[in-house]
Amino acid sequence: MEKHRVIFLPDQKQVEVDEGTLLIEAAEKAGAYLNSLCGGEGVCGKCRVQIIKGKAKVDNNSVAFFTKEEIEKGYVVACQTRVKENLEILIPPESRLEEEQILGEPLENKQKTWRESPPIHYSEPDWVSLHKRPSDPASLFEPLTNKIYLELPRPTIDDNIPDSGRIVRELRRKLEYSSYEITLSCLREMFIKIRRPDWKITATVSRHNGMGQILQIEEGNTADKNYGAAVDVGTTTVVAQLVDLKTGKVIGVEGNHNLQAHYGEDVLSRIAYVCGKGSLDLLQKAVVENINKLVETLARTKGISTEDITCIVAAGNTTMSHILLGLMPCSIRDDPYVPTVDLYPPVSAKEIGIQINPQGIIRVLPSIASYIGGDTVAGVLACNMADRPETTCLIDIGTNGEIVIGNNEWLLSCSASAGPAFEGGDTKWGMRATRGAIEKVKINGGKVLFETIGKVKPRGICGSGLIDLIYELAKNKVLEIDAKFSNSLRDRRIVRGENGMEYVVAFPEETETGEALTIAQTDIDNIMRSKAAIFAAIKSLIDYAGLTFDKLEKIYVAGGFGNYLNIEKAVSIGLLPDIPRERIEFVGNSSLMGARMALLSFHVFEKAVGISQSITNIELSKFALFADEYMASLYLPHIDRERLFPSVKF
Amino acid sequence: MEKHRVIFLPDQKQVEVDEGTLLIEAAEKAGAYLNSLCGGEGVCGKCRVQIIKGKAKVDNNSVAFFTKEEIEKGYVVACQTRVKENLEILIPPESRLEEEQILGEPLENKQKTWRESPPIHYSEPDWVSLHKRPSDPASLFEPLTNKIYLELPRPTIDDNIPDSGRIVRELRRKLEYSSYEITLSCLREMFIKIRRPDWKITATVSRHNGMGQILQIEEGNTADKNYGAAVDVGTTTVVAQLVDLKTGKVIGVEGNHNLQAHYGEDVLSRIAYVCGKGSLDLLQKAVVENINKLVETLARTKGISTEDITCIVAAGNTTMSHILLGLMPCSIRDDPYVPTVDLYPPVSAKEIGIQINPQGIIRVLPSIASYIGGDTVAGVLACNMADRPETTCLIDIGTNGEIVIGNNEWLLSCSASAGPAFEGGDTKWGMRATRGAIEKVKINGGKVLFETIGKVKPRGICGSGLIDLIYELAKNKVLEIDAKFSNSLRDRRIVRGENGMEYVVAFPEETETGEALTIAQTDIDNIMRSKAAIFAAIKSLIDYAGLTFDKLEKIYVAGGFGNYLNIEKAVSIGLLPDIPRERIEFVGNSSLMGARMALLSFHVFEKAVGISQSITNIELSKFALFADEYMASLYLPHIDRERLFPSVKF
Repeated sequence: MEKHRVIFLPDQKQVEVDEGTLLIEAAEKAGAYLNSLCGGEGVCGKCRVQIIKGKAKVDNNSVAFFTKEEIEKGYVVACQTRVKENLEILIPPESRLEEEQILGEPLENKQKTWRESPPIHYSEPDWVSLHKRPSDPASLFEPLTNKIYLELPRPTIDDNIPDSGRIVRELRRKLEYSSYEITLSCLREMFIKIRRPDWKITATVSRHNGMGQILQIEEGNTADKNYGAAVDVGTTTVVAQLVDLKTGKVIGVEGNHNLQAHYGEDVLSRIAYVCGKGSLDLLQKAVVENINKLVETLARTKGISTEDITCIVAAGNTTMSHILLGLMPCSIRDDPYVPTVDLYPPVSAKEIGIQINPQGIIRVLPSIASYIGGDTVAGVLACNMADRPETTCLIDIGTNGEIVIGNNEWLLSCSASAGPAFEGGDTKWGMRATRGAIEKVKINGGKVLFETIGKVKPRGICGSGLIDLIYELAKNKVLEIDAKFSNSLRDRRIVRGENGMEYVVAFPEETETGEALTIAQTDIDNIMRSKAAIFAAIKSLIDYAGLTFDKLEKIYVAGGFGNYLNIEKAVSIGLLPDIPRERIEFVGNSSLMGARMALLSFHVFEKAVGISQSITNIELSKFALFADEYMASLYLPHIDRERLFPSVKF
Repeated sequence: MEKHRVIFLPDQKQVEVDEGTLLIEAAEKAGAYLNSLCGGEGVCGKCRVQIIKGKAKVDNNSVAFFTKEEIEKGYVVACQTRVKENLEILIPPESRLEEEQILGEPLENKQKTWRESPPIHYSEPDWVSLHKRPSDPASLFEPLTNKIYLELPRPTIDDNIPDSGRIVRELRRKLEYSSYEITLSCLREMFIKIRRPDWKITATVSRHNGMGQILQIEEGNTADKNYGAAVDVGTTTVVAQLVDLKTGKVIGVEGNHNLQAHYGEDVLSRIAYVCGKGSLDLLQKAVVENINKLVETLARTKGISTEDITCIVAAGNTTMSHILLGLMPCSIRDDPYVPTVDLYPPVSAKEIGIQINPQGIIRVLPSIASYIGGDTVAGVLACNMADRPETTCLIDIGTNGEIVIGNNEWLLSCSASAGPAFEGGDTKWGMRATRGAIEKVKINGGKVLFETIGKVKPRGICGSGLIDLIYELAKNKVLEIDAKFSNSLRDRRIVRGENGMEYVVAFPEETETGEALTIAQTDIDNIMRSKAAIFAAIKSLIDYAGLTFDKLEKIYVAGGFGNYLNIEKAVSIGLLPDIPRERIEFVGNSSLMGARMALLSFHVFEKAVGISQSITNIELSKFALFADEYMASLYLPHIDRERLFPSVKF
């Protein structure tokens, strides 16, 4: 088959591909990553590129995404266009998948920009520092993999038990387990590994079903070199923390965007890809590559060897967890929404392609249901919800909003299909919280002040920016209580666009693309549907529990809002319940935090298993009043403002 | 490198090899198997071959094995001779490794030949038929792998637990385990395997650490198709029984000779090979090939698929068990004789190359010490020694004699390095119990009557034949009480050979090779050393226990004597203790029997673990009186004939 060279601008990335290759595949091969919300179905139009030189085979159905001028300029959707000859392709800013502004480090280190509301306080709950409470068995510091240095007595004719028994006998003096298993690969090396260093060895031991499991024997004393990684496997971003398992200290954090994004933006489109024309293997390899890159970078920059990383704890939603382990996610998508498994077996890292110590293990935090995953369990751990008598609430806002309410006696969860509006989808100029995204907005006397991530010209607006924007539009009476543009207001920023009324957030000369950045009525409707779904879910769960919002001692808000969420504005538009603001805490990446806690304590991991098995998950589709709650929430802030949002003033 | 063609006669097996290849390697590659006692060290001379055509590079040290005539005829030792050009090689009968007469089926089916003593009775202990005693938990029929047919309720929105949980919930109704683990590979197929057959599936479940382990999901009802194999991995022969795990019935048995024989006849020479110039991998692959061939043949001839074999239980000595699992056996050989492990972990059959169901498992019976292996543990199981109040004794005669004495309260074991005399080594015409071996001898008025395996002209004499021969020589006064040739007796069969006196068992015209088949004083001395070592070991163990022989309710004799052992003669030469003959039972391959019992019952497997951990192994080298016992046993039958062998009459 004939080969053609494709060059992707502006980064000059080149690749040689067969004739007929889809542009999106060529881009991936070249390492030039494109947006794709729909997973290559040709329905979202987010992977638009401009052909500068050469001819391609264009699918006629996809012209609907473009104006006449754009078609003349060579715009096509990359997932529906095939290579015919040598090409030069320009990836316009809006189609570029760039490095994310990824949550990992505590927020204090990054928040150096203005804000109107009181500083968002981010701190880890006290009990995360496991050393502090040695008396509480649940917080005992006992990493999932331990390295124990042993000086074995040499065998004699009076004491000639097997090598393995000799190791176990010494281990029993240092660890509490009564029985031990040894992996075959460890046994295979034992003869040499025990004798070359003259019976001075270090055993790497994990714990499984109450037994010690000896994974590895190293020569000499290597007990100081034991590292683990906590990984938050998000649909959008993957974040890893490198942790010293001897001290429990975090020594580095890195994030990248989930490479599965080439196959679809959200879990549903990825499931559709896997279960339709695509392959699970590709997606599994993609996320493994994410993790390998993070771990490799962390190890390199911190001057340690990946061989010394012996354990990974991963937290992800149920689909991400399934794909990571190579499990088919297809049934998650279809009524009655059944995953393959909730308690993931311990897996050898090597078995799924993770490049750490070859004997290292990966533990995936258990799921609760198809749409409540290990990331939520991690959040419950991080916020210490299951160990306290006070009733608290965790709200994790993403394409799905996951909500947990409860205390040390009961826990309820539900998930609401919120749509991707707060993650950059469903709106014309929506984008993820990456460079160039407007994340803060203020409107003052017809002037729009905004701030972008990276302090560059805007090329879109992310979730926190949209919340700010809706609030500001409502406050300035641009939007009515039903979130429709006011008919009475005169404002030069309100214009009539292709699809009805639009509000101009940034004029063409202010933006990176040179086009006006607008928000249309249809965009606002989509955002309202997202916020209504999330609030209705919270309200339904509270009602199901027979509580009122004021009974919540704390609401923890987690999610991919970059590093910023204006709590006051989020309450004011009716996204979050109207309780005293100091009781609402933005916790950022609680999934990562919980994963690290489980990595550092077998007892916490066991607690995660207990949480996943004891939590009661409510299917909102079965909950009769949810539809009513949803309809009542399609207002700013709510149709029952007096009773539910008494403190909100516009 | 230049290639040459080597043809091995008489079977016309051809191979093309590099110049410089050892003849023994070329033979192996061609599938023409040669004897080798020493593992290619060039010290035993058993791999002698005759070069018919072409020239080879001969090692000058090895000419000492041959007479001048033999050298002129082109005789060389194959392990010290290298290919120089195209060759034709004749493998003489004495160097051929032929199909063994391998113990497997109960003896009744095979013993159709004459014998002088009462028929040797071989039967399985009653309790082996596990179905008979359902009230005894230790004999519960519970194969190591079970297939359970399940009709799962389809998921609904009110019952949407994960697929895996749905399977476990149904399994709990049929099996007692409270918790279950599912292997990753099983989970990976689950989505399809559960839905395609409309929620009607068969789960293959094993048990480990008290938990159920789901290995496989099959579509529809396959519960009838569940097979296992019990394998006796002997140093010399490998025997496999195919067992229906649904009914517990044996449906076939096959044996072959251990392909590791190319690398050494006994465990010590194989360890020397592995730990010296050779590779563990070669030996591991060799025995795996043995097992694969047996299993494949059994499956094919019985019309089942190897995919339906889900479990193998292997019993072998400690070295064989180590090599099978790819564990270094080097430390077994050296003082203080320490193996790597005694409790072998459960292993996926695929992991070590065994070609049964890809999710199938292999369990190796635990060892007791470096020279008391899982085969002995299997023997204790088969003879039901650990469950009875009566004190019994198991004597397994091989290159090492393994002895166990005890009852349901205590068990003692020891092993004596007996040398290979009873297995065909250490004597000029000794051979294993294969075609052409004299297995029975009677001397009557100067006439020697003998019987060979396969009813062909003799080409050697095997262990049981040697016992008969020593007895007959003593009875006919050819041997004195000190096992030296009588000086007074005149017999045309007593001749002076190269190395002193010899007795002609068969004249040249009677043998396959056309040479006289003789037994020399040096041969007899070697046999006496073997029998003295075994008897002294039994006596030492009895003394250690503070017992006398008459306290033994039963002596079970196991070992590779083909299918024949004349108990009366074995007692008379002082190999076995002088107790009433009906209390001595030749049990043949007790290792295979015990392996099958463990395959059919998890409880029996657990019992094997208990036996291996509770048995007290006595190191004879530490036992001061052993040397005296050994010296006293170098007589026919014993120096203390009156006290220890009162019933023996020559």
